[in-house]
Amino acid sequence: MEKINEFDKMIEEVIELVEEKHYLKARDVILAYNEADIAEVLEEIMDEVDIESTVIMFRTLPKDVAVEVFSYLPAEDQVRIIDGITDREINYIIDELDFDDMIDVLEELPANVVNKILEHTPKAERKQINTFLNYPEDSAGSLMTPDYISLKQSMTVGEALAHIKAEGLDSETVYTCYVKDETRRLEGIVSLRNLVIQDDDVIIKDIMHEDFVSINVYEDQEEVAEKFQKYGYMAIPVVDNERRLVGIITVDDIFDVIEEETTEDFERLAGVVDSTDRDYMDTPVLQHVKSRLPWLIFLMVSSMITGAIITHFEATLAKVFVLVSYLPLLMGTGGNTGSQTSTLMIRGLAVGDIDTKDALRVLWKEFRVSITIGLILSTLNFLKIIFIDGEGSMIAVTVCLTMLVIVVFAKALGGMLPLAAKRIGIDPALMANPMISSITDMFSVTIYLIVAMVILDI
Amino acid sequence: MEKINEFDKMIEEVIELVEEKHYLKARDVILAYNEADIAEVLEEIMDEVDIESTVIMFRTLPKDVAVEVFSYLPAEDQVRIIDGITDREINYIIDELDFDDMIDVLEELPANVVNKILEHTPKAERKQINTFLNYPEDSAGSLMTPDYISLKQSMTVGEALAHIKAEGLDSETVYTCYVKDETRRLEGIVSLRNLVIQDDDVIIKDIMHEDFVSINVYEDQEEVAEKFQKYGYMAIPVVDNERRLVGIITVDDIFDVIEEETTEDFERLAGVVDSTDRDYMDTPVLQHVKSRLPWLIFLMVSSMITGAIITHFEATLAKVFVLVSYLPLLMGTGGNTGSQTSTLMIRGLAVGDIDTKDALRVLWKEFRVSITIGLILSTLNFLKIIFIDGEGSMIAVTVCLTMLVIVVFAKALGGMLPLAAKRIGIDPALMANPMISSITDMFSVTIYLIVAMVILDI
Repeated sequence: MEKINEFDKMIEEVIELVEEKHYLKARDVILAYNEADIAEVLEEIMDEVDIESTVIMFRTLPKDVAVEVFSYLPAEDQVRIIDGITDREINYIIDELDFDDMIDVLEELPANVVNKILEHTPKAERKQINTFLNYPEDSAGSLMTPDYISLKQSMTVGEALAHIKAEGLDSETVYTCYVKDETRRLEGIVSLRNLVIQDDDVIIKDIMHEDFVSINVYEDQEEVAEKFQKYGYMAIPVVDNERRLVGIITVDDIFDVIEEETTEDFERLAGVVDSTDRDYMDTPVLQHVKSRLPWLIFLMVSSMITGAIITHFEATLAKVFVLVSYLPLLMGTGGNTGSQTSTLMIRGLAVGDIDTKDALRVLWKEFRVSITIGLILSTLNFLKIIFIDGEGSMIAVTVCLTMLVIVVFAKALGGMLPLAAKRIGIDPALMANPMISSITDMFSVTIYLIVAMVILDI
Repeated sequence: MEKINEFDKMIEEVIELVEEKHYLKARDVILAYNEADIAEVLEEIMDEVDIESTVIMFRTLPKDVAVEVFSYLPAEDQVRIIDGITDREINYIIDELDFDDMIDVLEELPANVVNKILEHTPKAERKQINTFLNYPEDSAGSLMTPDYISLKQSMTVGEALAHIKAEGLDSETVYTCYVKDETRRLEGIVSLRNLVIQDDDVIIKDIMHEDFVSINVYEDQEEVAEKFQKYGYMAIPVVDNERRLVGIITVDDIFDVIEEETTEDFERLAGVVDSTDRDYMDTPVLQHVKSRLPWLIFLMVSSMITGAIITHFEATLAKVFVLVSYLPLLMGTGGNTGSQTSTLMIRGLAVGDIDTKDALRVLWKEFRVSITIGLILSTLNFLKIIFIDGEGSMIAVTVCLTMLVIVVFAKALGGMLPLAAKRIGIDPALMANPMISSITDMFSVTIYLIVAMVILDI
């Protein structure tokens, strides 16, 4: 806590210095921090001051620090920095970035800027970059780096270590080494740890693991994240359809994937159409409107239907007007109990605790839960209607019987819709609260009025 | 996709074999898979067959495989296995587990079982285990392992590599080495990669990084996860209040933390009190009832208030009964627009895109969004009420004006409540959909009836 406050204070100080155009003083303050921290400060300057000052601050950083800081910035901020610096600076950064970070940047830039950058790149590298740029956006191919250590079965540990020393690759990419045959097919993996603790004359073939896990280059990033979560590896090799090694994915890139996928689930849960990767503050008003309006209109239409049902039964309701005052209670309870269940389903499906083949067991469990909850809520309500509202017992029976039916229905619906969606290949998160509420609303009103007509004989 | 189906088929085959009590045949099938996969199969057997068969299958595994498989099982399944095996087998597993995995298991077991296990442990280790068991459940201390490589500033790279070879620790814990002084205070870190690419006679002091990131042993696991996400490191050292190194946390343990924290957010979003770490299927019915009922009762009371408001204005509504049929529309729109915003806030706060100090900017953005959305929805509604419902223009004006006010109010509320909660130290996720809907419901009905009385002059 203390440390965070210290960090916040530093940010305030830097922003003040930048506002007074004391850029070099501001630079001296931030250079005492880690590159990820400096990136955070730059983001704050971008938000609180302006993009021009941010670019000036960025250009005061030593080149090697600047490249690292750049790699920690979110994609949209990288693009804004690129817009503000010279072609030479751009080329320097692009050259120095890790391959996978470079691909991420290039993916965000307009095609003409990418082409200008690639003009200066050697032909072989340009070809490789283009291959990587062509992998589908959310595929394993778009996450991987071609920088990895390859070994041969016949090498000794000593030769392998000498090879690693000569290559001198980046930290994340060096901790697992990959053993390939002549056709570039992956035969096994060896951890750097294993190389370090073995004697120099041991043969790679004898220490490599052959039961490794791999990822297909076209696999969806969500499945990639699941594999990292399941196996707990630091890196997983990526192979093409011919099982040739084309790259590796390192664990540090998986956090972003998980964050992205979870945010998508949250947004869908709330009926927001996710059409943007930008964060809340950077998303323009019209974009917010565009991503929220579709569901609201859908829900409006469904409320209109509920309204039409009420109009249809107008005569009944007008006769016993007190029934109207219990409408919010019944509709609210239906929506809330249903979305509790649907949210648990959506999360359970996402983390793998629940499977579509569990449908019957879910239904049985929800049935028991809903009967229990329904009975408790109905009893409480019954007492309230009789003793507090002072209504007759027939009104109380009408409301409470309806409530029990609604709770059971809403929980069954909340349990089944996400499973059904998953089954037919729709994201279960779309079957969340808004969808469940609108269906239970229609159901609740109809059941309520039918029960009322029967019990109250109107 | 193809591979997953193959895996599912294997599981089905194994379950059939187990049901027919062909345990050894089943074992031969699963031994071809990775330990994480075998753990998944055992979980399926536990769900689909019974715990007895699962224990039998577990005991057919070679000892070293069994330990690995055990470490991949969820905590509650580990406890069930422990209940079914002999003390000798338990002690073997506990001895062989990584230190942090062992602590996780011991935390789940009843005190008497733990004491029985620790009887056989050497005194020094028992003391260390007890220290680890005493760290608060969600603290950095409960995530860390004391297994790490410590070096001294004065060592050479060659000596350091020889030291690592002699210690021969596990993969995840070996990739960063920690340089301590005599008082165990952390002075710097060196990556294994750096050791491997340097010459043997280089001195550690000259290559170690001193601007490392560290975690306090009492820091909350959520902050720990944030640091891993921010910096992208494979491991982060943990220090006590005197800045002495007490352990390290490795990245593979962070996925569980993120999953746990996200699930908590999801549950709170839907008004489910999270009182259990168990997954949906393993949670008993009464536990489900207990975790869902509190919010439902709270919401029931708030719907009763909305109902009371309706009763209070009964005379007004009864005069122009058609107003009742627009209630679902107005209440629904308030709840839906409000929870869109609150969900975006909750997620933005969780991933750090939004900060409590952004309140005014959020309010201004939501105001513009809500005016735009409100005008569009009101216009559509106006046309529908006039041309489809055939109601008078005064009714249409009443409904549409109310709708505009409700949308603006709901979005402001959805934006502010989570930020206010965060400010005063309550989890913003508690200010989600159910809370927002119940407040907007009361507000919507009141505004609706006031507007109706003024415009329709009733």
